[in-house]
Amino acid sequence: MSYELRLKQLHLELPSPPQPLATYVPAVQAGDLLFLSGVLPMRGGQLVFSGKLGRDLTVEQGVEAARLALLNALAIAKQELGTLDRITRVVKVVGHVASAEGFVQQPQVLNGASDLLVEIFGEAGRHARAAVGAAELPRGAPVEIEVILFVS
Amino acid sequence: MSYELRLKQLHLELPSPPQPLATYVPAVQAGDLLFLSGVLPMRGGQLVFSGKLGRDLTVEQGVEAARLALLNALAIAKQELGTLDRITRVVKVVGHVASAEGFVQQPQVLNGASDLLVEIFGEAGRHARAAVGAAELPRGAPVEIEVILFVS
Amino acid sequence: MSYELRLKQLHLELPSPPQPLATYVPAVQAGDLLFLSGVLPMRGGQLVFSGKLGRDLTVEQGVEAARLALLNALAIAKQELGTLDRITRVVKVVGHVASAEGFVQQPQVLNGASDLLVEIFGEAGRHARAAVGAAELPRGAPVEIEVILFVS
Repeated sequence: MSYELRLKQLHLELPSPPQPLATYVPAVQAGDLLFLSGVLPMRGGQLVFSGKLGRDLTVEQGVEAARLALLNALAIAKQELGTLDRITRVVKVVGHVASAEGFVQQPQVLNGASDLLVEIFGEAGRHARAAVGAAELPRGAPVEIEVILFVS
Repeated sequence: MSYELRLKQLHLELPSPPQPLATYVPAVQAGDLLFLSGVLPMRGGQLVFSGKLGRDLTVEQGVEAARLALLNALAIAKQELGTLDRITRVVKVVGHVASAEGFVQQPQVLNGASDLLVEIFGEAGRHARAAVGAAELPRGAPVEIEVILFVS
Repeated sequence: MSYELRLKQLHLELPSPPQPLATYVPAVQAGDLLFLSGVLPMRGGQLVFSGKLGRDLTVEQGVEAARLALLNALAIAKQELGTLDRITRVVKVVGHVASAEGFVQQPQVLNGASDLLVEIFGEAGRHARAAVGAAELPRGAPVEIEVILFVS
């Protein structure tokens, strides 16, 4: 089934792709790999969540933030590729979670992104992942997600 | 010489490969590159070391933790490839070290992983590396290691 | 135009490439991708900037540090490739910024590296980027930069 169709079935709408604020670009393709810039939980040019896990946000809010950040990554992928259907495999996700002292549930937070990838892409959405606790993230975002895709 | 044989000569035993606790997977191959998920210093499903460098663990304990995390990465590689002998080159290691305020010896800690790679793989084990100090890591782990391998 | 010539026109001089202090190496090529080790703002074997953004350094100093770290990356690339002219595209930059509590201008700091890449390489210098706030960095460096290059 088409991933584009699957998005519709899941009633998911991609945000407008984030605009880099500097000289970098949203994504670069190198051979079959598409490297995406780090994405934040943005919608309409605004950060929807801010603050640190373990202090300002619950794990549930972190999960929502990770999910929204991931949708921003897909918005970039669609902008680059024309369609999500050119994605052959989600290769790697690195998730940075802004973490107050003692917060160690980064994996639970990032499941918001990982689960959504599998909902949309099925087996092709199963990715290698690293979950890390950052001291701070740009603009005070609670999560930032880096994605590498295998594309055709 | 076989890397599998070299492991035996060094009296190293791989732990059972870590089981992802979510929808991600231990590794994804894209072309000739094998991207591994971040690994922690686990054995038998348990974290063997926890806490931060510069507060809870000595550098020597960090080195041991990095070494054990790396063995988890190799356990994943073996599970994926069938044998470590399909590894052509260790390409990149990113090491995250949970760091208390003022701890800046991340490179020394990660030498536990880097040195072991060269012990096992010789010149093919020499990798590009980045060493970073994390605010927190999953489950309170002191180190997390990401590995990219070139495989045949 | 040659990138080497462009460096001269910009009156930029590459530092001597940093020497790894351990068993890792400055860079590893895998297929067409050249993965560089994380670089710090070094010159002549010395760290030129140290401390955290938001406490010890201004954003302007951070920008200078990012710029110098990037020159170290190019020094490695030149050492590996013989000439910068074999660089086809700058693929990805991950920038780690040592961040005191509440510092969220990692992107501004890293523009020091991103802008320099575009000054030197033009469109081929436009890269995907992730900006992250680290708790600590090796030797007390304020920035560490990881670069992936597409090379011919």
